[in-house]
Order: sequence, then structure tokens, then C-alpha cells
Amino acid sequence: MSKTNPARGMRDFLPADVRKRNYVISIIKEVYESYGFEPLETPAVENLETLMGKYGEEGNQLIFKILKRGEKLVQSTGFNPSERDESRTLNELSDLALRYDLTVPLARVVANNKNELPRFFKRYQIQPVWRADRPARGRFREFYQCDVDAIGSGSMTVEGELISAVSTILNRLGFDDFVIRLNHRKVLADILDTAGVPADLHGDALVAIDKLDKIGADGVAAELAQRGVSESSSTMLLEIFEQTPKIIGDGKDVNRTIVSNLINIVSNEVLTEIGQILRYAANTPIQLDPSLARGLSYYTGAIMEINVPDLAGSLGGGGRYDGLIGMFGKEQIPACGFSLGLERILVVMDERGMFPPEIAESTPADVMVTVWSEQTIAESLKLASDLRQSGLRVTVYPEADKLGKQIKYADSIKVPYVCVLGESEIAEGKVTIKNMSSGDQATVERKELAAMIGIQR
Amino acid sequence: MSKTNPARGMRDFLPADVRKRNYVISIIKEVYESYGFEPLETPAVENLETLMGKYGEEGNQLIFKILKRGEKLVQSTGFNPSERDESRTLNELSDLALRYDLTVPLARVVANNKNELPRFFKRYQIQPVWRADRPARGRFREFYQCDVDAIGSGSMTVEGELISAVSTILNRLGFDDFVIRLNHRKVLADILDTAGVPADLHGDALVAIDKLDKIGADGVAAELAQRGVSESSSTMLLEIFEQTPKIIGDGKDVNRTIVSNLINIVSNEVLTEIGQILRYAANTPIQLDPSLARGLSYYTGAIMEINVPDLAGSLGGGGRYDGLIGMFGKEQIPACGFSLGLERILVVMDERGMFPPEIAESTPADVMVTVWSEQTIAESLKLASDLRQSGLRVTVYPEADKLGKQIKYADSIKVPYVCVLGESEIAEGKVTIKNMSSGDQATVERKELAAMIGIQR
Repeated sequence: MSKTNPARGMRDFLPADVRKRNYVISIIKEVYESYGFEPLETPAVENLETLMGKYGEEGNQLIFKILKRGEKLVQSTGFNPSERDESRTLNELSDLALRYDLTVPLARVVANNKNELPRFFKRYQIQPVWRADRPARGRFREFYQCDVDAIGSGSMTVEGELISAVSTILNRLGFDDFVIRLNHRKVLADILDTAGVPADLHGDALVAIDKLDKIGADGVAAELAQRGVSESSSTMLLEIFEQTPKIIGDGKDVNRTIVSNLINIVSNEVLTEIGQILRYAANTPIQLDPSLARGLSYYTGAIMEINVPDLAGSLGGGGRYDGLIGMFGKEQIPACGFSLGLERILVVMDERGMFPPEIAESTPADVMVTVWSEQTIAESLKLASDLRQSGLRVTVYPEADKLGKQIKYADSIKVPYVCVLGESEIAEGKVTIKNMSSGDQATVERKELAAMIGIQR
Repeated sequence: MSKTNPARGMRDFLPADVRKRNYVISIIKEVYESYGFEPLETPAVENLETLMGKYGEEGNQLIFKILKRGEKLVQSTGFNPSERDESRTLNELSDLALRYDLTVPLARVVANNKNELPRFFKRYQIQPVWRADRPARGRFREFYQCDVDAIGSGSMTVEGELISAVSTILNRLGFDDFVIRLNHRKVLADILDTAGVPADLHGDALVAIDKLDKIGADGVAAELAQRGVSESSSTMLLEIFEQTPKIIGDGKDVNRTIVSNLINIVSNEVLTEIGQILRYAANTPIQLDPSLARGLSYYTGAIMEINVPDLAGSLGGGGRYDGLIGMFGKEQIPACGFSLGLERILVVMDERGMFPPEIAESTPADVMVTVWSEQTIAESLKLASDLRQSGLRVTVYPEADKLGKQIKYADSIKVPYVCVLGESEIAEGKVTIKNMSSGDQATVERKELAAMIGIQR
């Protein structure tokens, strides 16, 4: 007998879960489309080489790799995985992998369809990704990303519109206490330079700084040391973060405050970009946070992350990655994007009870038709078919059974109405309709039925 | 530089493709829900043991297997893939696999959630599956199945409703020439017995018979011989198929015709079941075809397949599998389902031009707002935001640029209206609106704008 649980870190979604997921997805789609973003879908499986070397060291290790098939695998003779030679493992045994995010596939698609896509390509993509991470509360090995990206422009208008779009989504879902943290990879680079961290250790330092929220200043100091950053640099770095207060706002005043705090460290060009983003993303709750790092290695400019007070992780994040598409094509094309984490949003909405009643209490059908006997099944099916023509969702009890058992089943699936079609009803061309919440029932003409259920539901 | 094409047999879907896919999926969902089916989703990745041994020999070989990770892989010491020992390959190197269909995961979910699911569980599931098949025209390695299954009843009402539901979908999509071929695994078993094929070769024989459409009677005879079926049995088998004409109909007359053809071979019980299905699936174009075999090994009763004249393969298929859930749980639970192939449906609809104009000619936005200069970007973003409040889909040109270039871009993405917001318009609180198809333009008050675009589109 096979095991029945899903694979580790993976989940089944029963109907009530799917309805909640679809509700959130439908609002995300609607808002992304209202900003002129178009849908894109890419395959779950990518060539291994498409994904490798794009996410940084931690990402590479978390990619699910697919075993070669048939002859291809057989040809991989004499390989011994105990040699611990990772590149050999990959070349010998695997040629494909599961998508790790939706950004690298987008970069590949843009490079591959350069002539078919508009000059500015604005796309959204809502699909699962897979990471061989250690499963934990709210962290799964399969999860949905709801990405929105604008390709082809280096203007901060893009950052502004992306922040505005995701804010609109969160407002529409009922969030009123989220904050969008904003930083810039060049701010971090300037801070790292100021602290004396050599350029070839910047990547390592960012991986450590990214954990500041999770492991605190002492934890980051330890990891920085482990990654070869000197104690003096490490101390100075953490002091800069501590001394630069996080600032909330959305206009010129904030810009001036930032300047007063970072003017000695950060270049004018970058300060101008940050000021533009704050201006273009008007009416959104932005918090400038110079210690925000983001884990992925492909970011080059602004980086963003959304937080709410009652969730340790983020609801989503993103940033500018002007160098990624050039890894796939001859041409370097500027790009910026945002990704909302569906499951994080769902966790908070569930805990706070944010789903509207029609989603939280939905039923599989508006009405159930009973079956009187083997001989009358076709009559029941005919009635169901007629009711569906009127736009109702109708389920039929699948077999002849005691009426009490049929009503009990209708109750268990929470159907609001039951149609009883017994021999007398059939003979008279009528139907007995039972309101399951009030218990009332009445025998009526068939043609009155749809209107009764439609009006009363 | 990384390659830019998707992996072999996998596809990217650009916006126009996604819109067509979503159109078909939305109709499939709507009809399934009108029959009282509820949505279910399962993970793409399953434990390898969940999938192995469920699909028959051919299926097993086409399952994409996922490489073990980190320590688990390192522990697989001294393994040599050239040994051609498949079970060893799997145990040593792989522990997970990509979903091959949606039926086996459903069986697992039903066994795993026995107490939470209603006694009769009616679910639909529209998700991709993966098969390491040789790619060909219309055959991909990632493709969507649109499954509908009813769990818990052995009544032929289920088969009737499933056939009725998929017929409704095809009608709604505009198909008027499809045929649903119907057969029964026990009809095949009786025919195989009559032809003298030993019981332990039935599975092999079905794999061969399944190819009758593709490779013809001679091809099947050759494969039967290769699989150990005697020449006399093979000849008799193919004679029975030839002599039993395929019958189209939907009522009792057909039932009688079947009886006259198959009465000497097939048991009464099975003939009764077939007759019930024909009666319960009233008004659907059913063709009884005793040679229909279906490739999967888990079917136990009725089997179905949908064909249209201009497609070599089928648009979908299904059947009863009363033994599958018992492979996962203590309890044997009857079940029956149908699966529509999204890409097959799309191929035929594309070739026949069956998409409505709003899908075939859709645009990314209702209106594009231009940007006059760096200084007026915030004004343009504000206008876009106001128009979105009126329910319009609005895209903003992302940077200050020559007006001619902005209009040219709007034309390239086929946006019907462009709003020009120059310095004079901003000063007067007005907007110039340009109808892109007629070329007409007018300068109007901002508050009139949404109504103009809304009414005219």
C-alpha cells in the first residue's frame, strides 16, 4: 500500500483552500491587468544551464534537478556520487531542473522573443516555483509567486508603478498596515565601500546582511566574519545601519531626510533615483531601509520588500535587475519586477479572517436533485440539466438511496436547496423543493423552480 | 551566454496564447462547477513511490524523476548507472517525481483525507502534467489536463453525468462534430477470453490494441505477436473488432443493437451497464467502439474517448477505476473520471478559428497615457490612477520621449486610445484623447475622459 501524504514540503489544496487561493489570485490578476500588464506562462521545467549560476550560491543548491532519462542516463557510466564533485554530478546525471523563480525564465523568454515582444514588455505571471529548502512554518518546497515585471525601461517610473500596483492589490485584499521597505543595491555598495569591505566580498556580505531581521546584528557579525569580512569593517557596517534610521514617507521631505543621513556615503545619482521612486509611488506606505539586502544576486538597482507586523517574513519583494537579460541575449535590457508570495498573503488573511463570506462559506452547488429509484434516474438528470440551463450549479445524488440518506448528504456538503423528485411529483410534472436552512418545503411547478432558488439564494 | 529556448518539448506561452488558454479553461471550470464539481489542486512533485507501478510499463518509463539532494545523494555511494538495473537507479538516485497525470494524485488525496471529504466527492482539477515522451506535433512534455472525477459511487449515473458535462463544454466552445467513443474494460476482457488470449497477457494485449487507430490491424497483429499472443488468438481478436460495427446513438435502440452484436461474447451485467450509460448521457453523440482500449492500466469499467474528424489523437478520455484508491487506502472506493486535453482542444480551435473576437484580438490596455517630460511624469501617473478608478485598464509610457515615438508604441501594442498630457493640457486641467483606429482627437475635461473611453470601446 502506497503512502498517502504529499511529498515533504508539498501540499494538497482541498476545495475550500483552492477557492481562497483563486480569490486572491483573481484580485492580483485584475489589478495587474488594470496597470496594463499582460499574462505570460513558462514551463515548470527548464534546461539546467538556464537556471545555474543566476541566483548566487544559496540559490544554486536549492534547485530541484531532474534525472536524465533512458539512454542518456545509461551513458553516464562509472559515476560515483560520493566524489562530492557537484559539477560532475550535474553533468552526468541531470540535464533539466524545476523553475526556482519566475524572473530568470522571464529573462530567457525576453531574449528568445526579442522581435515579437513590444519595446516595453509589461508582463505578469502567477505560477508555482520549487525550492529544495528545509520546510518550516509558512515555508514550502512548492509555492506560488505572483510576479509583475516591466522590461525595457531604466526610468524610475517603473519602480513607482510597480510599488503602486502591489499596494493597490494589498489594499483591495483588505490590508491597511503593510509597509514597503525600499533600498538600492548601490546604496549598499556605497555603504560597503565606506566600511572598507573589498568589492569581491560584497556578494558574501549581502548574503549575511540579508539575515539581519532573522538573526540580529550579532548573528550577522558572526556570519560576516565567517565569510572573511574584517572585524573593523563589520563593526562599521553595522554601525552605519544602526545610525541610519528607517524613514517612512512618500515625498520630498523624506528625500531631504535621506540626504542628510546618507549624503556622505551615497552618490547623488542614487539619491536622485530614490527620490524619484518616492515621488512616483505616491500614496504608498514606503519605508527607506538602508539595511535591506534581498538574497538574490541578480539585483542591480532599487530593491523592495513588503512587511506586515504579524508575519516574520515578507509578503513579497522585488527590484531592478538590469544585467540579467544580457546573460541570455546579445543585448543588455533594463528590467524591474515585483513578486508577491501567495502563501504568505493567504496565511495572514486566514489568521486575520479577511476572506469575504461568499469565499469563506462557499458551497459546491446551489441545489441538489435527489434520485427516487433506478427507474427515475433519467428524470432526475433531466431536471438537473434544465436547472443548469437557468444558470444554477446543480449536483445530482448519484444513486437510488433512502431519501433520508440523500438529505443528510446534502446537509453535509451544505447545499442550500434540495429538489425531491418522487414518483408522484414526476406524475404531476412537479417538484418538491426543500430549503435546507429553514427546513421549509413546498411542491411547485418545475418552471417556477429556478426563479425560486435564484431569488432566494 | 545561456541558451534562450525552452527545454525540449516544453513551451513558453506569450500573452496572446495565455488569453486563449484562459478562455478555454474558464469555460471548462464554469461547466464543471455547474455540475457541482469542486476544485482540487495537488503538488507537481510527488513521492516517486506514489507514482510507480500505477500506469503500466509504458507509463513508468515516461515519469520524470527528480535527483536526490545534498547528503542524500552523497550517501548513494558506488552506484553505476550503466548496470541498467532500473529499480536500483531509482532507489539510489531519485526519491521524487513529476506528476504524470491527475488521477493517481487524486486517489492519494482521497485516501489521505477520507474523513474530511464528503461521501461522494466530485472534484475537478486543471493543472499541468509531465511525461518524458518523444515530442511530436501536438505532443508535449508538459501539458495541461482538465480532469473531472466523481468518487464514491459505482452507479452509471456518474458515467452519464461525466459524458454530459464534457459534451456541454465542447458545445459551449463551439464544437459540433465530436464523437464520444465508449467501451468497457470487461467487454475487452470478454473479447480477449473469447479469442483465447490468456489472462496474464490481457494487459499486454490492451497496450497493443490501444494503437489500432495509429498503426492499423497489421501493426497491432505484429505487436501482439511480439508480446506473446498466439497468431490464432490475434487473428480472432482482430476479426471480432472488424465484425462489430461501431454504433452511434443515445437510447434503447442502440442498446438492443449492441446486444445483437455482442450478446454471445459479453456478459449481461456489462451490457446493462453500457445501456444505462447510453440512457443517462442523453443527447450526447456516443459511439460504441469495442476496440477502444485506452493505454492506462488502472481502468476497470467503462472507458471513453472524444474524437473530432480533423485530429489524429483524442480531445480527451477517461473511464472507471474502481481499484486505484484501494492501492493507497484500506478501503476500496469506486471512482470514475474524464480528462480533457487542453492543448488538443486549443490546436483544433486555433486551426478552425473558433475563438471569439474579444479573445483573438485582445489588447493589453484600454488606454495609454503619454509622458510629456521628466517634470510631468507624476501628473501622468496621477491621470492613469484616476482612470483605473473608473475601471479602465491603463498603461503609462514609461519615460519622457518624443510624442511620435510614444504614439508609435501605442500602435504597436494595439491600444485603442491614447491620452496626451502636455504642459498646456496640465495647465488647463484637460487631456487630449486620440482614437487610434479613426485618428480623431479632441481635448476634453479630465472628468469626461473615462466615460468617453468606456462608452466608445
